[in-house]
Order: sequence, then C-alpha cells, then structure tokens
Amino acid sequence: MSEGWLGRDVISILDFDREDLEVLFEEADRMKSLLANGSVPKTLSGRIVALAFFEPSTRTRMSFEAAAKRLGAETIGFTSEEGISVAKGESLADTVRMLDSYADLIVLRHRYEGSALYAAEIAVHPVINGGDGRQHHPTQAMLDLYTVREAHGVIDGLTYGVLGDLRYGRAATSFILSLGLFKPRRVYLIAPPSLEPRAEVMMLIERLGIPAVKARLEDVIGELDVLYVTRIQRERFPDPEEYERVRGAYRVTPSTLEGAKRDLIVMHPLPRVDEIDPRVDSTPHAWYFRQARNGVPVRMALLNLVMGGGAS
Amino acid sequence: MSEGWLGRDVISILDFDREDLEVLFEEADRMKSLLANGSVPKTLSGRIVALAFFEPSTRTRMSFEAAAKRLGAETIGFTSEEGISVAKGESLADTVRMLDSYADLIVLRHRYEGSALYAAEIAVHPVINGGDGRQHHPTQAMLDLYTVREAHGVIDGLTYGVLGDLRYGRAATSFILSLGLFKPRRVYLIAPPSLEPRAEVMMLIERLGIPAVKARLEDVIGELDVLYVTRIQRERFPDPEEYERVRGAYRVTPSTLEGAKRDLIVMHPLPRVDEIDPRVDSTPHAWYFRQARNGVPVRMALLNLVMGGGAS
Amino acid sequence: MSEGWLGRDVISILDFDREDLEVLFEEADRMKSLLANGSVPKTLSGRIVALAFFEPSTRTRMSFEAAAKRLGAETIGFTSEEGISVAKGESLADTVRMLDSYADLIVLRHRYEGSALYAAEIAVHPVINGGDGRQHHPTQAMLDLYTVREAHGVIDGLTYGVLGDLRYGRAATSFILSLGLFKPRRVYLIAPPSLEPRAEVMMLIERLGIPAVKARLEDVIGELDVLYVTRIQRERFPDPEEYERVRGAYRVTPSTLEGAKRDLIVMHPLPRVDEIDPRVDSTPHAWYFRQARNGVPVRMALLNLVMGGGAS
Repeated sequence: MSEGWLGRDVISILDFDREDLEVLFEEADRMKSLLANGSVPKTLSGRIVALAFFEPSTRTRMSFEAAAKRLGAETIGFTSEEGISVAKGESLADTVRMLDSYADLIVLRHRYEGSALYAAEIAVHPVINGGDGRQHHPTQAMLDLYTVREAHGVIDGLTYGVLGDLRYGRAATSFILSLGLFKPRRVYLIAPPSLEPRAEVMMLIERLGIPAVKARLEDVIGELDVLYVTRIQRERFPDPEEYERVRGAYRVTPSTLEGAKRDLIVMHPLPRVDEIDPRVDSTPHAWYFRQARNGVPVRMALLNLVMGGGAS
Repeated sequence: MSEGWLGRDVISILDFDREDLEVLFEEADRMKSLLANGSVPKTLSGRIVALAFFEPSTRTRMSFEAAAKRLGAETIGFTSEEGISVAKGESLADTVRMLDSYADLIVLRHRYEGSALYAAEIAVHPVINGGDGRQHHPTQAMLDLYTVREAHGVIDGLTYGVLGDLRYGRAATSFILSLGLFKPRRVYLIAPPSLEPRAEVMMLIERLGIPAVKARLEDVIGELDVLYVTRIQRERFPDPEEYERVRGAYRVTPSTLEGAKRDLIVMHPLPRVDEIDPRVDSTPHAWYFRQARNGVPVRMALLNLVMGGGAS
Repeated sequence: MSEGWLGRDVISILDFDREDLEVLFEEADRMKSLLANGSVPKTLSGRIVALAFFEPSTRTRMSFEAAAKRLGAETIGFTSEEGISVAKGESLADTVRMLDSYADLIVLRHRYEGSALYAAEIAVHPVINGGDGRQHHPTQAMLDLYTVREAHGVIDGLTYGVLGDLRYGRAATSFILSLGLFKPRRVYLIAPPSLEPRAEVMMLIERLGIPAVKARLEDVIGELDVLYVTRIQRERFPDPEEYERVRGAYRVTPSTLEGAKRDLIVMHPLPRVDEIDPRVDSTPHAWYFRQARNGVPVRMALLNLVMGGGAS
C-alpha cells in the first residue's frame, strides 16, 4: 500500500510501489493538461528548491528547474563542483546541511553511489536523487514509465528491449529495475559482452522476478513493444577497434526497424550522439522527444506531491 | 506593412520594417516609464524564457534575464557550452528541441552564422537571436536604433560614423544594416583596411541603398550626428606592430571630439577596453551607458510583444 | 544615532552602530518567525538583486539568493569572473554601471580591498559588500553577532576567542572589528605567529578600544563564552613542516573542549575542512550550523530594510 508522497525522499525507484506510481502518473496527467491550457496554479509559491548538481546535467537540471518554476517555486544551486566549497575540501555532509537550511527540498546529482541516500539521512527536508553513481536515477525511470503508459496505455504485459550500455548507464539500469514494479512479458538485455549488467544488478533483476534475457537486436526486433536505447561511450572500450566493431550493431536506423511492430516505440534518455539515426525521428516509432518533454510534467507532479502543493 | 510581433522569430534586423520597429519603440517607451514608476505589471507571469548562451555574454544575457524577470517570467538556461550535453556531442537540433519543450521562448547565442535561423525552424516556440556568427545581433540593433531615436528624436536624415572592427564585429554590422530600414543622410565606415566590411556585407549595404562610404575619422568628425564605436581586437592582427600602428587612430578621446557637433552622440555596444577614453564619459557626447541601460526596456518590449503579454 | 537603513550601502561593519544593528536583529527575528510559519510576504516582488560574485562563494551567494527569493525579489548575476566581460578587459567601473542599470541593488564579492566602496561610489543603487579583500565581510559579521545574541541573549560582557587565520581570513577580521561596536569583556586572539592580525588591523583594534590580547587556546578555553574558529590554509605556510607542526594546536576536538564553560558556543563561518572535529557536531557547543542557517533571515532583514520592503 502506498505510503503517500508528502515529505518523502526519492532515492531509488524501488522504494515505490505501483500505487505510488499510479498516483504520480495521474498527477502528471493533470499537470500536462494545466500546462497545455497555460493555467498552472502557483501551488509552490514562496518555496525554494535547491538544485545541487555536483555533476553537470542538462535535461535533468533544466527540467527540474522548469518544473519548480512553473509551479511558482524558486531555485538556488550550482551546476558543477567547481566554484563551490567542495573545491575547498568541504564534506558532502556539510554542503547538504547548508542546502537543507536554505531550501525546502534538495535535488542532488553526484557521481558517487549512495550520495543521495546519505544526503537524505542528513537533511530535514526531502531529498530527490537526480542521479547518483551507476544505478539510480529514479526520476528518469518515472518519466520513462510514464511515457510507456502514454504510448501503450499499460506498462504490464509488454515486451521490452533495453539496448546499449547496461553496465555503466544509470538511466538504463534504473529503467530495467523499475520494470520490477510491473509485470512485463519479457525484457531483452541487448548489450556488447563488456557492457552487460554487473553481477549485482543481475541478482537484483532476478530477485525482482523481472523476466530478463540477453538477446541480439536483430533476433528480437519483431517482438518488441518498447526499445529503450542508450549511448555506448567510446571510452568504455580499452580497444578502439573493438568499439568500431560493436557500434554498428547498436545503432538504430530505419532499416533496423523494418521488421518492427507497427506500434513499437523507440525511447532514449538523451542526449544521443549517433546511436539513433536522425532519419528515425520522422517515423512514428520515435518517442524520445516526447519522452524528454514528459520530464517537466512528471517532475512537476513529483515536486507538487512531495512538497504538498495541493491542487489549486 | 507590419506582420505584427506575436509569436514571431527574431533572427535578423532585416526581417522587420519601420512600422514593426515603431511599434517596438513605443512599447519600449511604455516599459521605460513603468520601470521608472516601479509599477511594471507581471504580464508574463508563469512563462519561461530559455537563455541558451553557447557563447558567453554579459550584457545581452543579463539584460534579457532582467527583462524577463521584470515582467514576471522565469528563466532557465546555460551560459556556455561547458557542462551541457553539447559537450557530450549532442546536436544543436536536439538541444533546441529540449529547450523548446521546457520553455515558451528561446533566446539563443551561438558562434555559428545561421544557428538562430536553424533553431527557429526546429522550435515550435519563438526564437530570438542573441547574436550568431559575425553578422546578426538584431536585439542590439534594436536598442541602438532606440537610443538614436531617444537622443535625436529621429533616425532618418542623420549622419552616422561606424568605427572599429566592421569585419568581425556583429554589433557594428547589425547596426549598419539596420540603417537600411531608415533613410540616413550618410554612413561613414571608419575601419583599418584589414577590418573593413566583408564583400558580402558591402553588397548587402548597396542592395539596401545605404549611403555608405569609407572615411577617416578626422575627416568626417565635424559632420557626424552619431559615432558608433566598436572594439578592435588585438588578435585580429597577425602582426602586433600593425595593431600598435592603427589603434591610436581608432581611439576616441576628448581631443578627437573637439571638432564635433554639439549634439553628436558617441555609442558603443560595450564592453569597451581602451577604445573610448574614460574622460569622454563626463562629456555630453557619452551615450553608451544610456544605450546599455536601454537594453532592459527594449528587451522587455520585445518579450512582451512576442509572447503576447499585453498591457496589464 | 542610527542613520536608518533605507537605501544605504553596506561596505564595512564599522559604518554601523549598535542601534543600526539592533534594528537589523529585530527585523531578522521577525523574518525568522515568518520563515518558520511559511508565511513570508513578498515585500520585494518586482525588484531585482544583482549577485556579482567575481570570486566564487557558496554560502554567501546562495544565502543572499535564498533571502532575495524568499521575499519575492529576483536575482541576476554571475558566479566567477570567467565568462563575463571582465575577461575581455572591461573595467570594474563599467561592469558596476551595467549592473546598476539592470538591478535595484548590487551584492558584490571581489578579491580586491576597497572594490565594494568603489562600486558604491559609482552605483546609484545600494551596494552590499559580500566580502572584499582580507578585511571586510560585513554581512558575515552581522549574522555572527546575531548568532551570539541568539545564544547568549547579549553581545556585551562576554569573553571571545578568535582562532585560526587572523591575517588573511576576512570573516575573522570582520568579526573581531565588529566587537568594537559592543563591549566585550575580553577578546583572545589565538593564531600562529605568522597568521596574527596585520599591523593595520591591530591599530584599528586598539583605536576601537577592543580589549584584545594574544593567547594560546589551552590557556583560555575555560574562560570563553564564544570560540570563533576559522580555517588555516596550508598554502599560507611556505614551509609544509611548519604547517604540520601548528595545525594540531588549532584543531578543535571534544578533548579541546573538556575544560570549557557549559554554555560556550563554537562558531565557524564555514566551510570547514578539518579544523573542527565532526565529533564536536553533536555537542551542545556546536553552533556553526545554526550560525550558517542564520545567514538567510539576517540577509532577508538586510535586503528588506535597505530596499524598503516594509512589513507586509
């Protein structure tokens, strides 16, 4: 049963259950229609959201900022470690205490696994994980699930392919694990051998009962309802030739999609470099821009529920 | 006849006509008096302006930010390429799509010619060019023309001198071309040979019927109603000695202005380094600070007209 | 007698008198209770505060930003010299003139002594010194004094120890001098020989009649009501061995505090590195986090008084 959202920390997508997410999605639907009408009430007027981005980010940071401001809240914060006291050797704990005393909620992105949880233990105000380490990016998972629901009406019963860097990519990992809260028909893990999920993630996938199997894209493309693409970074490959060899197999082009179901949606957390051919953009499969757009209403819903903005 | 301002992209000053500018200037007059009374209505409350500065800027960025906020709008954005997804190899098109889905209007500064036009073709929301390439900086030209009108009551019939880097300086080029919408008596182009306007700009000047001729400052100073000064960057000169030789001839001092008309105004898009002697600041010719101040009411007027803020 | 706060520049704590500070502290009390009730009126709605941080800062910048936004004001500005026109060689005077024409008040941090005073002479709008050079950081001193008053009910009659870098640390110097406005019983200056106050500061201390004497921490710990700790930066010591030798004597640990009065408060402008052992955090002596938190209500009070926000 849902614990409710008010005042809650948002650290891992696995801290939530279906009912929680259903409440969130309905609130996001409401936000979406208020945005469309240009009639968003300033339910968070007078409130301050701290955006503490120890690592740079474009979409997560700006969509949180837009979400807060649409609801009448203000933001303070920083966009990298440079120029803040961390550079002088300040501990994360002290930085969090400061933010906690200036703001009503903290959104935190940090390169270390567990930073958001640690921050949440220190802060009096709610902490939202804007991505930490290699595993957790719960608000990305929320908007991803919301996008699936928007496209297909359901999240259960679908066949998913998750393609790319499943080892270091936190959006991909977070999305795969989030499917553990639902009943997917099957989840295909499509990655080069060196970028398959880490053992600890595979164990978690199993424990959550996610019907995940490794596959090659060409073998399963015809079965997929959702193809979630992520970037393969060249620097993950010690051998550049190895990189050149695999990249073609993980690039989505119109011909990749030839055997696809008519209502297959292609998703991507963005930014993309060349893993999705721009010619895919004009096909009905392209859902990644709509997915990015969903960042604002889903984060508005989240802020409004956690900060108790209410409906008017 | 004016197309009206609502929803319009602002890419080049040449996309506008006299009536458009007259509407803008009257709106700027109105903004100026609201600012003076401290009674600016929040006509853009709830709206978000994206400030996408791929190149750093001080005055353009901060005056747009102040303009948006005076009218009750909020801003999101970035102040350089560093730390945004562009660094990861994202295309300008994808970055623009993102901004377009988070904000209601995009102000874009970029080092490549044509970026603003390209962005405008992609974005659903209006795009304002905050300076791209070497040629276009339409909002600077708008506030420059507004400043001339404020000082002299008219823009037509005056004699202009434009001094400095007419080859790479986009403010100077934009200002010269903007005079093609009016009927200047004469426009003197005062530049070292290596910094004269490019051939394509000279052709445009001719096509627009701008009565432009090259001149030396000392020969024409007594005729000028407006002297528009811009910076000559040392790095434009392959030979440092050549730079040292020319710089004196393009530095404005009280003695330069000895033979000037009593109501000559000296303008400069700022920042200046040493091309205007600070002793000029206290003469009645110094209009560059007033010009800079006009950045806020002119950009308020522009945002209000394009975003449909209305009068109350 | 108090000159009143409206429109006043805030350059040095010594420009103010007890009555001024009493008015400020009462306004800060009021802000604190409005914050606690979540009922801060937007008395500065429509106003713009320029945050001109030529040097990076975390607490000062973010607490000013939070303070302005809690009161409904907006902010514009920059967080380092990088990327603003200063990099192109613009003078401080021209940068200040620009900010003055975009905003209603300027908060300035700069590494050069006297910058804030210089800016105040140029600007029409009030200038608040957010720290310049090695001596002045008046708003830090204000929140420090406010914190002493909160802990002890009074500022007069107490025994103070100021520990650390008294030579280059502007928070420590500003705090010591601020005690010249009150009647401390005694002020112990506790610093390594190479980090004792400069001769000019010692003369000022004397002229202000501050009962200051040099001391070693272990000799006076039992007498102190307030221990103000600041960071000793390694780079101040030409000889790293000398640094290693002294640092232990200036590190505050639970055992340092064993002989302390029960109501001794330990303060620190933060960030700290290792000059206060985290085990001190859970003792009742630890007041540095509360001190940091006071940054917001004290700066809200200051902005509201200077900008004439009034009470409702």
